[in-house]
Amino acid sequence: MADPLITLTTDFGNGSPYVAAVKGVILALNPDVRIIDLGHDIPAQDLRQAAVFLAATLPYYPPQALHVVVVDPGVGAQRSILYAEVAYLRLLVPDNGCWTWLLEGERRRIRVIRLAEKRFWRSRVSATFHGRDIFAPVAANLSLGLDPRELGPVVSDWVRLERPIPQHHPNSVTGEVLFVDRFGNLITNIPGSALTRDDRPKQVRIAGVEVTCIVRTYSDAEPGTLLALVSSSEWLEVAVNRGDAARQLNANIGTPVTIEYEPQA
Amino acid sequence: MADPLITLTTDFGNGSPYVAAVKGVILALNPDVRIIDLGHDIPAQDLRQAAVFLAATLPYYPPQALHVVVVDPGVGAQRSILYAEVAYLRLLVPDNGCWTWLLEGERRRIRVIRLAEKRFWRSRVSATFHGRDIFAPVAANLSLGLDPRELGPVVSDWVRLERPIPQHHPNSVTGEVLFVDRFGNLITNIPGSALTRDDRPKQVRIAGVEVTCIVRTYSDAEPGTLLALVSSSEWLEVAVNRGDAARQLNANIGTPVTIEYEPQA
Amino acid sequence: MADPLITLTTDFGNGSPYVAAVKGVILALNPDVRIIDLGHDIPAQDLRQAAVFLAATLPYYPPQALHVVVVDPGVGAQRSILYAEVAYLRLLVPDNGCWTWLLEGERRRIRVIRLAEKRFWRSRVSATFHGRDIFAPVAANLSLGLDPRELGPVVSDWVRLERPIPQHHPNSVTGEVLFVDRFGNLITNIPGSALTRDDRPKQVRIAGVEVTCIVRTYSDAEPGTLLALVSSSEWLEVAVNRGDAARQLNANIGTPVTIEYEPQA
Repeated sequence: MADPLITLTTDFGNGSPYVAAVKGVILALNPDVRIIDLGHDIPAQDLRQAAVFLAATLPYYPPQALHVVVVDPGVGAQRSILYAEVAYLRLLVPDNGCWTWLLEGERRRIRVIRLAEKRFWRSRVSATFHGRDIFAPVAANLSLGLDPRELGPVVSDWVRLERPIPQHHPNSVTGEVLFVDRFGNLITNIPGSALTRDDRPKQVRIAGVEVTCIVRTYSDAEPGTLLALVSSSEWLEVAVNRGDAARQLNANIGTPVTIEYEPQA
Repeated sequence: MADPLITLTTDFGNGSPYVAAVKGVILALNPDVRIIDLGHDIPAQDLRQAAVFLAATLPYYPPQALHVVVVDPGVGAQRSILYAEVAYLRLLVPDNGCWTWLLEGERRRIRVIRLAEKRFWRSRVSATFHGRDIFAPVAANLSLGLDPRELGPVVSDWVRLERPIPQHHPNSVTGEVLFVDRFGNLITNIPGSALTRDDRPKQVRIAGVEVTCIVRTYSDAEPGTLLALVSSSEWLEVAVNRGDAARQLNANIGTPVTIEYEPQA
Repeated sequence: MADPLITLTTDFGNGSPYVAAVKGVILALNPDVRIIDLGHDIPAQDLRQAAVFLAATLPYYPPQALHVVVVDPGVGAQRSILYAEVAYLRLLVPDNGCWTWLLEGERRRIRVIRLAEKRFWRSRVSATFHGRDIFAPVAANLSLGLDPRELGPVVSDWVRLERPIPQHHPNSVTGEVLFVDRFGNLITNIPGSALTRDDRPKQVRIAGVEVTCIVRTYSDAEPGTLLALVSSSEWLEVAVNRGDAARQLNANIGTPVTIEYEPQA
């Protein structure tokens, strides 16, 4: 059987000693585990960006993986830490909602346990670094075969993070930029299907600009052209072929975006 | 036998969800594979920087490794994806030339296959993320022992990326900065041998400055001294001991560099 | 038995081809080794930041790990490279002192060997990249079971890096910021115990500002509040709940910090 996998997603920053300490604690308890860095550059304490990241990545992972997520502005306070199963996904997360977008469309295959049994934690728990002192040792114990029910009580309530919902109007859909990738592509919360419905002519409006070039992939347009397309996760995306739409439009996370349909006769 | 190795080189950015998704797809198909991050900070869509990176790193890897390279400005368009063997190196690359500097000096041990068999791809291939939908599943399948001939037809033609060639003159060699490392060291495309030939006095000219301090290693010069030396990959390098030559000279990739030899009597 | 572990800590920069080359050399010699990236963003050539990083991370790792540290401004010159054992920790380090804070409190379980046997190095050693040409092959050989005594002579003298010591006065302790994390938290060299002694009222002074809010964790204060607390490594830390203390105070590494106690009657 394959060695167990633990993935790490944090806002500690790439190359942070905090990431290195978490890995050390895990490996000290289970030297056989394989640790996969998912991403450590989630914007600091940004739960929504964490949610975007997790929704775009975790569904691709196999059930062997245990996903440790430490984006945790409430560390040391009353917030709980949860072990959560969502279908075949298994996570360790702070109870701040950053993981709850994964619940969408999933009703029955959910189990959530609140970490309460301190015997699986480091003997001394700092008030500001539960990643090292609680998440890491619990993850290592789970990777060694610990039954999650040992960790604490099953709970049925947890903090939920609202996903910003696009507004549908008769002749338009309005949403916002949810994520800006490294290329300056603007990924929105408007479903790609709103762009590809071919019954009505349309354009995209963002940052005071009209985007009329609607394509399948970047290079379908001339270099430098502002364009709209369906993102790889099936959202409306605004981009510039071989360019940087975020910079060109001075747009960012939260910038409003509208698809305008030609009024029907 | 050792678990198979897959290395990843992309321009997605460190901590990008795109990198994390690629890893997930690979691990879902082959949980035993070990994934090695080579680098994800190749400048966006910069084929030449990708070529510099690959030439400076892949030759050190063992034959077990399969090198997945996703610097792919033409994603979704007509460009092909290639499986390439160059001597003992095995790669999955977009057909944009970024890998072709590895062919230098190698004539016979080359095999290139164009990915055509969609049964090894994800069932749904997005137009903008072939890293996740084609490269990753094909890499995983190869790591599981798939014969590369199953992937598609052998091809004998592919896009080549020109390597900028230095100009040799009777009393000088002119090239350019090809790479700037994290320390601000300027690595050029002039062979180190042009610096170490000891038959003629010489100096290096870059960004309007004459570099007369020619040394073996940085600390052979006083701190702060602008110096020229042979880089670890045997190119002419301009550096500042305990300083940052790029900043000090306001030099960057593409800045011209000349070695001037004293005219012979 | 678990596969051997090699950790890498460098100042090469995340995504540097130098890191990728080091990994390749190691894997070519021992494809079974697991490589753990600790951090590659140590500020360039900054021995003190390397020391802070190592002290905050290595103690969490298991004895299986061999820690390779390449922060090496003296590369290629007369400085030695050391294999060091400190209690159960095993390191390969340049002899520049960056590892010596790990020796604190440890008197007997120390063994240091100076690398001298070139047969364990790459056959061609560049003057500027010992990470690839000496550290990597020696680490791989050790991971294959090489007896460290084969590497060279035991030595009893090495470069030490001074740790900045806080100054204790009758009514105050003065230190400095030693590390700034990704959140802008300022971690100092003043022991946390100087903050938590509850016999005397106190305040913290930094960058011309008085910090009177002394708490256990960030969220014990209102968002935006400047606060002092004990860091996860038990040092005095100055932070802002959900904010960035470094930016707010314009403070950085080296900024002086004082705990002032109310004079006793």
